[in-house]
Amino acid sequence: MTQENWRRWGEDDERGALNHIDADTTRRAAGLVATGQVINLAQPLSPRTPFPPHRAGMQHFMGRSGADYAAGARRPGGFQFAEDTLLMPAHIGTHIDALCHAWYGDQLYNGFPGAGTRGTTGAVRCGIDKMGPIVTRGLLLDVAAVRGEIVPDGDAIGVDDLARASAVAGSEPGKGDVVLIRTGWAERDAATISFDAEPGLDLAAALWLAERDVAVVGADNFAIEVLPFAAGTVFPVHQRLIRDFGIPLLEGLLLKQLADTGRHAFLFAASPLPVSGGTGSPISPMAIL
Amino acid sequence: MTQENWRRWGEDDERGALNHIDADTTRRAAGLVATGQVINLAQPLSPRTPFPPHRAGMQHFMGRSGADYAAGARRPGGFQFAEDTLLMPAHIGTHIDALCHAWYGDQLYNGFPGAGTRGTTGAVRCGIDKMGPIVTRGLLLDVAAVRGEIVPDGDAIGVDDLARASAVAGSEPGKGDVVLIRTGWAERDAATISFDAEPGLDLAAALWLAERDVAVVGADNFAIEVLPFAAGTVFPVHQRLIRDFGIPLLEGLLLKQLADTGRHAFLFAASPLPVSGGTGSPISPMAIL
Amino acid sequence: MTQENWRRWGEDDERGALNHIDADTTRRAAGLVATGQVINLAQPLSPRTPFPPHRAGMQHFMGRSGADYAAGARRPGGFQFAEDTLLMPAHIGTHIDALCHAWYGDQLYNGFPGAGTRGTTGAVRCGIDKMGPIVTRGLLLDVAAVRGEIVPDGDAIGVDDLARASAVAGSEPGKGDVVLIRTGWAERDAATISFDAEPGLDLAAALWLAERDVAVVGADNFAIEVLPFAAGTVFPVHQRLIRDFGIPLLEGLLLKQLADTGRHAFLFAASPLPVSGGTGSPISPMAIL
Amino acid sequence: MTQENWRRWGEDDERGALNHIDADTTRRAAGLVATGQVINLAQPLSPRTPFPPHRAGMQHFMGRSGADYAAGARRPGGFQFAEDTLLMPAHIGTHIDALCHAWYGDQLYNGFPGAGTRGTTGAVRCGIDKMGPIVTRGLLLDVAAVRGEIVPDGDAIGVDDLARASAVAGSEPGKGDVVLIRTGWAERDAATISFDAEPGLDLAAALWLAERDVAVVGADNFAIEVLPFAAGTVFPVHQRLIRDFGIPLLEGLLLKQLADTGRHAFLFAASPLPVSGGTGSPISPMAIL
Repeated sequence: MTQENWRRWGEDDERGALNHIDADTTRRAAGLVATGQVINLAQPLSPRTPFPPHRAGMQHFMGRSGADYAAGARRPGGFQFAEDTLLMPAHIGTHIDALCHAWYGDQLYNGFPGAGTRGTTGAVRCGIDKMGPIVTRGLLLDVAAVRGEIVPDGDAIGVDDLARASAVAGSEPGKGDVVLIRTGWAERDAATISFDAEPGLDLAAALWLAERDVAVVGADNFAIEVLPFAAGTVFPVHQRLIRDFGIPLLEGLLLKQLADTGRHAFLFAASPLPVSGGTGSPISPMAIL
Repeated sequence: MTQENWRRWGEDDERGALNHIDADTTRRAAGLVATGQVINLAQPLSPRTPFPPHRAGMQHFMGRSGADYAAGARRPGGFQFAEDTLLMPAHIGTHIDALCHAWYGDQLYNGFPGAGTRGTTGAVRCGIDKMGPIVTRGLLLDVAAVRGEIVPDGDAIGVDDLARASAVAGSEPGKGDVVLIRTGWAERDAATISFDAEPGLDLAAALWLAERDVAVVGADNFAIEVLPFAAGTVFPVHQRLIRDFGIPLLEGLLLKQLADTGRHAFLFAASPLPVSGGTGSPISPMAIL
Repeated sequence: MTQENWRRWGEDDERGALNHIDADTTRRAAGLVATGQVINLAQPLSPRTPFPPHRAGMQHFMGRSGADYAAGARRPGGFQFAEDTLLMPAHIGTHIDALCHAWYGDQLYNGFPGAGTRGTTGAVRCGIDKMGPIVTRGLLLDVAAVRGEIVPDGDAIGVDDLARASAVAGSEPGKGDVVLIRTGWAERDAATISFDAEPGLDLAAALWLAERDVAVVGADNFAIEVLPFAAGTVFPVHQRLIRDFGIPLLEGLLLKQLADTGRHAFLFAASPLPVSGGTGSPISPMAIL
Repeated sequence: MTQENWRRWGEDDERGALNHIDADTTRRAAGLVATGQVINLAQPLSPRTPFPPHRAGMQHFMGRSGADYAAGARRPGGFQFAEDTLLMPAHIGTHIDALCHAWYGDQLYNGFPGAGTRGTTGAVRCGIDKMGPIVTRGLLLDVAAVRGEIVPDGDAIGVDDLARASAVAGSEPGKGDVVLIRTGWAERDAATISFDAEPGLDLAAALWLAERDVAVVGADNFAIEVLPFAAGTVFPVHQRLIRDFGIPLLEGLLLKQLADTGRHAFLFAASPLPVSGGTGSPISPMAIL
């Protein structure tokens, strides 16, 4: 079976599994706030932020700066300022994939044509601008802790891993959750990471989450799913979760500090940049404990 | 008196008034969540996003897109994807100013040298990467509603306006608040807005907020403060709030939908992109009602 | 009749009318050098360079600069340097159109598929990198001088104009020539120019040149051809000259200084940036008198 | 002795050794054209163009392309087009250094202050826009041929090498010449090149050229000069030639095809992009034989 969530929220829906979150979901999640501690789950963004070989890195151009004043720039009314320009691939660092990011069979989530995303228009359907804020329960599934080690490159995380991590968390993934999977990948020395092999979900584990009606699947690795892919497949988790279930993927998270708190369920809040017709966005998610 | 908040949180502090928010502040703010409705306060980002003449607009470059598949691109394992690159000034659309963005007397907030922000290094001190998530009480001061009209260009919003709007809100701005001021400017036809004249705070009103120990001052206009400036001054609110009080400014908000709910106090959450040494960041703030 | 020059230089040819220039053509053109005066025909490039509304302007990002040293940057071994980054649409200022830039009927010059130019690959065929240096006779047809005025916006330059200008030049356009047409458009106050209306060639005049086997058609306006277009047509000169004759268009030239010398035939030299798969290139052509 | 060419062409001069080329120089150089063969000396420009670690590579963004039409974009009046945007450091691939690119003692060529180049203004003095076309005698000094091998990384090319190569060329470098030095570096497998070690001129050899009043020094390596530098020095050739003699450096040339012709003296023509206040420009030089 495929196209599981197509037309579940109407023929025009472009938000997919985010529809699992309603006001009541958010209200209940806010009730999880206990200490008020807030944890930033985003990687620093700089020209040194790692990126895979088929993409370019971020560039940071300073325009006016304090150096200009040292060199004699005028200070009308005493005012001094600095400003800069950012160039970045939408899928760098900690970022979220829009539902137009991945598909197969020439159809996006909910049956929209893949050809509706063009160089001249961006994504007419399922762009990142259709997503809006995400405020719901976050659930940390700490597979690295359950395994007792950083999951090795190429090692698939299966349903068993998620079930054991859920048991440790004291809660199963459920409707409207943002599920955050810690593999430990991002905690290694940057010089040792690769974009060709990484630990991540196998397809069965991804479907196990999708069938529980989670809203978002996130992880601390590059691609959520295991690399290299299972034989004969290419990004199978992207294909099925994004296109058939309408589940956005939240990639490149930093989860160590959160894991160290011992909390597994918390208020999660994040909101992508509303880039018209964009395929994704760098994002700075927060765990509010 | 100047430099009001310098050394208030130590000689090395780079977060300024955000220090007014602690875990307890956040915990109490979470208690404001009543219905769970979430409102996006961010403008859409596109090449059509308005920008002042001294800056350039945003550019959105699509790399691989659905059009490439229509033109015959291969689909290894069935997989299809689209991705894009963003070029944007850090201070475009809805954005937050880092404490390194504005200063006078060659010293930033807390006495750091202005010359520590350079073309080659970005901001060594007070960069946007030092800010982190902002989760606290949001307080809407709806000056446009109090005035009964969109505040006209060039009209200064004074202490009286804020006091009247606070009365309507049923709460005064207080320690750790993110105060959001609605002028109505952003709700006008884009063709009628100017970056030379806009409604905004006068210096006394800005100081009235700063002295109440608010964490952030936000508004739905371009510069928080009134333009043109009072005679003989240039960005006086930026100079005093950012540099002397360490208060970040949150600019270009969309506040109409929030105002229409009738709620004035709510849980506010936002987190800038952690650009190393950046002077600001586009941001997507949320009001959680 | 269409596709006049398809297969004239073989099925794989991607250089079109540039094939009219051979070593002997270049050798003879070098013989035109009389005084050795060299004239730069290129516009300055900066964020102020005019551009049409559907494109973005140039951006110039300084990285390291002298200001950094004023602010205290180190000088290892005494060495100081400055460097910068350019962002520019390929078709800005003085630029040349590659043969992949314009077409109709889904086929480029020489029958190559239009769909061979994609977001992911650039132009597989007829990219600017296939063009190489252009060194041949330049012939100035000074229509503004013949008309006795800057040709008004929307005024078509016809065969008669070109014939009269040729008579003044003392030479007809011929095989392998780079023909440069002065309309005077670029000499007006920048504030008065429009990208919706300009003087330029009508289709008959363009074909008159093409049939004389010229190598390149250049002008001092934005589009070579007259704007608005003749009723029912859109960029007819681009369609026919580029796609059917394989003639590159050289746009946005500065021709006043050259015109003022009184010389009409000279050694022309220019070479585009060899951007792999690019659709055009900013270029700095030279007239060597 | 330093500052050899300061004030040689007046206090306001920003063109330095290019002043060695006058109309008569150009006229005589045009007389060298024998066969009319034209050789392109520029590297292809693409995201794969090699660049040193402290810079970023080129990016090539396709906007509208043939793929958009395959995906259904409209063709008003039948017209189809493709266009793109280039992002590139000014000093990538084959490029020329402006006289504001390198200096020491806080003074540029001719005594202009280094601090006159800023993030906000670019280079007020000695920018690439002051350079203009370069049309003069080119002289190939084929050190790789004289040595009988590609000069090894780290091997200094001295006065003897240049003298022997001049003897083979049948001509000494002279006033107004563009001297092109072939080391063979660029002809190696790209995977074997480094930006930390390369063959190049030692300071004595560079001064030997400068004292002969050449206009430009070019080479097929990254930095003209040998890397690593002589002990205790950093870019000594850049410092002395650019700042004291006002000699632009032309880097990253492809010289193999030219060398294979057996011609050593020829008409050289190149013209940088006239970027206002730029520190350099990618360039496409031509040898006209």
